[in-house]
Amino acid sequence: MNAKFIVVEGLEGAGKTTAIKQVIATLNAAGIADIEQTREPGGTPLAERMRTLVKEGHDDEPVTDMAELLLMYAARIQLVDNVIKPALANNKWVVGDRHDMSSQAYQGGGRGFSPALMLKLRDMVLGDFRPAFTLYMDIDPTIGLTRAKARGELDRIEQNKIDFFQRARQRYLELANSDDSVAIIDASQGIEKVAADIDAALSEWLRHAD
Amino acid sequence: MNAKFIVVEGLEGAGKTTAIKQVIATLNAAGIADIEQTREPGGTPLAERMRTLVKEGHDDEPVTDMAELLLMYAARIQLVDNVIKPALANNKWVVGDRHDMSSQAYQGGGRGFSPALMLKLRDMVLGDFRPAFTLYMDIDPTIGLTRAKARGELDRIEQNKIDFFQRARQRYLELANSDDSVAIIDASQGIEKVAADIDAALSEWLRHAD
Repeated sequence: MNAKFIVVEGLEGAGKTTAIKQVIATLNAAGIADIEQTREPGGTPLAERMRTLVKEGHDDEPVTDMAELLLMYAARIQLVDNVIKPALANNKWVVGDRHDMSSQAYQGGGRGFSPALMLKLRDMVLGDFRPAFTLYMDIDPTIGLTRAKARGELDRIEQNKIDFFQRARQRYLELANSDDSVAIIDASQGIEKVAADIDAALSEWLRHAD
Repeated sequence: MNAKFIVVEGLEGAGKTTAIKQVIATLNAAGIADIEQTREPGGTPLAERMRTLVKEGHDDEPVTDMAELLLMYAARIQLVDNVIKPALANNKWVVGDRHDMSSQAYQGGGRGFSPALMLKLRDMVLGDFRPAFTLYMDIDPTIGLTRAKARGELDRIEQNKIDFFQRARQRYLELANSDDSVAIIDASQGIEKVAADIDAALSEWLRHAD
């Protein structure tokens, strides 16, 4: 099987970190050991500096929604061209903590950029590059943000009001329900049931992957 | 007369700094004293940090052409929304050292992004915001780069080969020749003739501006 790019998506507090551990365990169990992990925004020296720009607060200057969107894509193309594509070309699997679906949900659904604009920008920047499989960890943002707050300080984007995250979740669900390469995991369940669902969905996908 | 956004464009070594001084002198002579100056990329705290990211060398990681393009537009929208539009709304004139035409020339002509992609991205980011008048300082890049090198170290973009700047100049000229709001100044002339040409072109434009 050719190496693939697998992504874990979801709102703050959806349990992405735990989910990624299960994804790697399931891949290992399937005999896939050589795995690169990425996170977005970030994952390269330059993209991490863009992550800082976009996620920290700027007391002296509002970050425009458009600048936030463009920085997300600038960081993404650095990661795709300099890390993800070279890894796949070396037959190394890649597991990503967020990818393009996060922009569709947060900047599209949350900030209100239209689906038409969002897809135009995606195609302009990424061409036809897409993850092979995505696990979307679905959580009610009232639950997710309570979990995230318990972990510590929220960054500039995490400080948005609850309706921002509700719009992001709605866009996540719309995209997940219309895309066969996305599995929806109920992240409100207990940790062992979530892990079992991830293992089942990924194992099933692996059985049919080329 | 309503306040306007006036831009000075051109390759490295075209004499933009001197040209801007003449633009301000001509505006002052016309009774326009309250003038904000901007430069691109940059001109706000956040946009200046993006300028650093895009212009410095990155030994450990190539800057993709697309990331460069997106960073230029992220910096631009921060400047337009947070500085230029508020100044114009306060009836303050703005004189810009570079604006969108630089991206059309350098990332479009120089890097090779198609005019169609470049105009799509411009419209997506800037909407219908345009400078009222642009002075394009035209110079053969072999002359301009010699002047620029005499000033000191060249940054990452200035280190491109001569054909990059020849393509940028060609795009500058195509755009300038097809846009009534752009005056072409022959920047290879002596400094006093250049200043006189700028004064004449801007004064003529001011006589017809609303």
